[in-house]
Amino acid sequence: MSHSLTGLSFLGFARGQQGGVTFTGINPATAVPLEPAFHTASFAEVDHAAKLAGKAALILAAQSGKAKALFLRDIALRIETSAPVLAARAQLETALPEARCLGEIGRTVGQLRLFADLVEKGDWVDARIETANPDRKPAPKPDHRSMCRALGPVAVFCASNFPFAYSVAGGDTASALAAGCPVIVVAHPAHPGTAELVAGLIVDAVRSAGLPEGTFSMLVGDGRTIGQHLARAPELRAIGFTGSRSGGRALMDIAAARTQPIPVYAEMSSVNPVVLLEGALTSRGDAIVTGLLGSCTLGVGQFCTQPGLILLTRSPVAEAFATKLAEAFKGAAEGVMLHAGIAKAYQSGLAARIAHKGVQVLARAAHSGQPNRAEPALLAVGAKEFLADPALQGEIFGPCSLVVWCESAAQLREVLVGLEGNLTATLHATDAELAANPDLVAQLATLAGRVVLNGFPTGVEVSHAIVHGGPYPSLSDGRSTSVGSNAIYRFSRLVCFQSFIDSALPLELQASNPLGISRKVDGKTVN
Amino acid sequence: MSHSLTGLSFLGFARGQQGGVTFTGINPATAVPLEPAFHTASFAEVDHAAKLAGKAALILAAQSGKAKALFLRDIALRIETSAPVLAARAQLETALPEARCLGEIGRTVGQLRLFADLVEKGDWVDARIETANPDRKPAPKPDHRSMCRALGPVAVFCASNFPFAYSVAGGDTASALAAGCPVIVVAHPAHPGTAELVAGLIVDAVRSAGLPEGTFSMLVGDGRTIGQHLARAPELRAIGFTGSRSGGRALMDIAAARTQPIPVYAEMSSVNPVVLLEGALTSRGDAIVTGLLGSCTLGVGQFCTQPGLILLTRSPVAEAFATKLAEAFKGAAEGVMLHAGIAKAYQSGLAARIAHKGVQVLARAAHSGQPNRAEPALLAVGAKEFLADPALQGEIFGPCSLVVWCESAAQLREVLVGLEGNLTATLHATDAELAANPDLVAQLATLAGRVVLNGFPTGVEVSHAIVHGGPYPSLSDGRSTSVGSNAIYRFSRLVCFQSFIDSALPLELQASNPLGISRKVDGKTVN
Repeated sequence: MSHSLTGLSFLGFARGQQGGVTFTGINPATAVPLEPAFHTASFAEVDHAAKLAGKAALILAAQSGKAKALFLRDIALRIETSAPVLAARAQLETALPEARCLGEIGRTVGQLRLFADLVEKGDWVDARIETANPDRKPAPKPDHRSMCRALGPVAVFCASNFPFAYSVAGGDTASALAAGCPVIVVAHPAHPGTAELVAGLIVDAVRSAGLPEGTFSMLVGDGRTIGQHLARAPELRAIGFTGSRSGGRALMDIAAARTQPIPVYAEMSSVNPVVLLEGALTSRGDAIVTGLLGSCTLGVGQFCTQPGLILLTRSPVAEAFATKLAEAFKGAAEGVMLHAGIAKAYQSGLAARIAHKGVQVLARAAHSGQPNRAEPALLAVGAKEFLADPALQGEIFGPCSLVVWCESAAQLREVLVGLEGNLTATLHATDAELAANPDLVAQLATLAGRVVLNGFPTGVEVSHAIVHGGPYPSLSDGRSTSVGSNAIYRFSRLVCFQSFIDSALPLELQASNPLGISRKVDGKTVN
Repeated sequence: MSHSLTGLSFLGFARGQQGGVTFTGINPATAVPLEPAFHTASFAEVDHAAKLAGKAALILAAQSGKAKALFLRDIALRIETSAPVLAARAQLETALPEARCLGEIGRTVGQLRLFADLVEKGDWVDARIETANPDRKPAPKPDHRSMCRALGPVAVFCASNFPFAYSVAGGDTASALAAGCPVIVVAHPAHPGTAELVAGLIVDAVRSAGLPEGTFSMLVGDGRTIGQHLARAPELRAIGFTGSRSGGRALMDIAAARTQPIPVYAEMSSVNPVVLLEGALTSRGDAIVTGLLGSCTLGVGQFCTQPGLILLTRSPVAEAFATKLAEAFKGAAEGVMLHAGIAKAYQSGLAARIAHKGVQVLARAAHSGQPNRAEPALLAVGAKEFLADPALQGEIFGPCSLVVWCESAAQLREVLVGLEGNLTATLHATDAELAANPDLVAQLATLAGRVVLNGFPTGVEVSHAIVHGGPYPSLSDGRSTSVGSNAIYRFSRLVCFQSFIDSALPLELQASNPLGISRKVDGKTVN
């Protein structure tokens, strides 16, 4: 690790600091500020970063898959090599344990390499060729060749709860760079040092690859000020965001109101309903208690897939299960949250929900009174009350879950139909229950991007088949995924070349298939 | 053809007429009203259609590819069988010639069959399987299986310039039904009879297939009243639109402001720049004059791919070419436009552009004074003036094109960089010019969804490789296409099933691959 912290933004290869506001990281476990001071970027500096990205866009879009793969793998290697230093800083800024920080660095490196493999292989461009037929009647058929190409400059807003995997070099950055898009990162103010260290490594990789400096910038400052200013930059073509519903919706509204509206991929809010049928509770009740408690409280509940909603149909078995789950919650340990803002929001969200008429506290674990701690809590409400107030399906970010008591199978379905979109939906059922309730799976598939059977939603694989995304508000654009190789399509667009001579075509579409990629030729896949 | 015209909406299997406003189709060639009177739908009737669609959504999403293919082919056959009646009514309402109407019916039928083939084959769902690895360290790898599924109810706003192929049973309807989405069509008021006839055939096919009545509705009324009301319906999950920039943007703004924002695929405005390099003019100048005149005036210029912008770099060759092109425009015939609104907009748009300081009239063909006629016109402006006023790249829908005179190759590039998004961009160049100007192709690919070499942009193939879409404002969402098989992805979303038992999975994802579709298993394509 050759870089020491400066507290400055990266504007391509230059540094920025003209915003006039300084702040520091804070150790959430002790509430003690961390050196150094960070200096926000000015609006002029944000504009400069956007202009650099605009200038880099065509050059980056023209990079070969091989060149992009080398670049992504170089970033991955630099991060891997610096893992101890990066993890140490992240621990200070987030209170996440060392093993989690190192594990998340591994995930981040793995994501970069997944996209490197994807673009090196090159099939992702979905090359399609329709060969000409000059003899076709009534009109000749022209030669058409289409493929996915880079969309253009992307703004990435970092998550607080994943200082690596959904931050500076996280999934959004990796997929955007893989597609061939310049990236402007808005660092999360809760882990600015971690952000600067990772950004420095990316900038080193940009230099080393000989790519234009506008390939990557990282801005220091608040998402609601410099971030929203960036969202209005005319050079921008897409936004990736992971954070609060209000922050994401604000970006969506700004993007929609632009002269040229652009897509926003905002991962915002998800309560991840878990439906527990009686047969499953009868046969595996204790295992479900253990698994559910673990999923609800993992990482102090600071996962977007935390199961915040537990749907039970009233029966003696379900009531006994709820009692056991409550005992488990009661005995669970508090944990340090990521930053004071989240800790405060958890306590106020919990207090407001407990104050809600009809909500009952089944369990609330002990709180030591130390700063930024969150204690697990299990609440309950009747389905009728739940259906009457949409606020009850609002996310409380942290280790809190709400049991919804349904009085019948019909009422369970009524609750499901009334739910907003979610990242995940989980069903625990016996094979016989599954066979008897096919409509439940269909309904859950309508609600969420990932449907989990007899498991728990936390833990998101990085793969070709994963879907991390779901109907609004879990994702602003529920057609896509923000994790896994499919994420590259968020930052690409289709372009078709008509009647081109071979030498003027991208390699992916040339007659001899010089890259050896899989292509669809006259409707048939040719590998 | 068993249906006679009633002037009523289709609300599933029922009819509607409570909007309180009546209007008729009008023969644009004679300005004579056509029987019968059409009765607009009321807001309550719009809401009812949306509710029916909401109820049908899960049932439709669960239809097999085979069942959807049968349904689409049945619609196609009914339309094909009724072609003479449909074409006769469309001729009266649009003044399009019989051959064009019959040809467009053929295109419509072909689109329906293309999507039928696509969903019957089933590969489009992009099935991906990651098999479990219980021994993986540090955590076991779960089984993940993902595919594209229907998005939900879709509103389709019909185009005036394609009474069949972009209207009631057009590309948006075909692709949405193919994905498994219920469709609510807003008929275009300029061809209400044609719309009712086609809608009746689709409703017959819905009944015949035993599908729920909410599968399809068609609303009579104005897009800005009942259409905008429909866009707010909570059941809706996407909007397809073909029409004006103001109408499309209004829908985008409504969709973005919803409690649950939804995607809008609005095809709105495109001037389809044509770049003519000197070598091409030298070697094929006369052929380009003929081809360009044909493309500019085809169908009275009423195509979204009409080349409205011609970029020339000043030289004696280019000036001689412009003179010849002007002569050709001068001698071209007027034509009847689709309806009085379009004809009036053409004349006022043309007058405003001619009045623009710096714009010169190179040619304006004769006008007979008969109703709703448009005469071809060729205008010219200097690049400096063009760059100074964004209004000059606004679309004038009709047979009018604007030559932009660039003083240098650098200024040509400046003009290209300043252009908004387009459906198409065309380049005429010799092989040597192509080799010497690789940046031009890259720039055109950034500007448009389809780049045409040494051809003309009008004429859009329906195929797997076509891209009909481009950056805003040509399409609201430039990542997608509204023509060809790729259009199905606009109305689908990704869903992942985790750790499912085989029998509870969709057939596309079951272990034995009972549908025999192409799938990506652990990263490798298995056919």
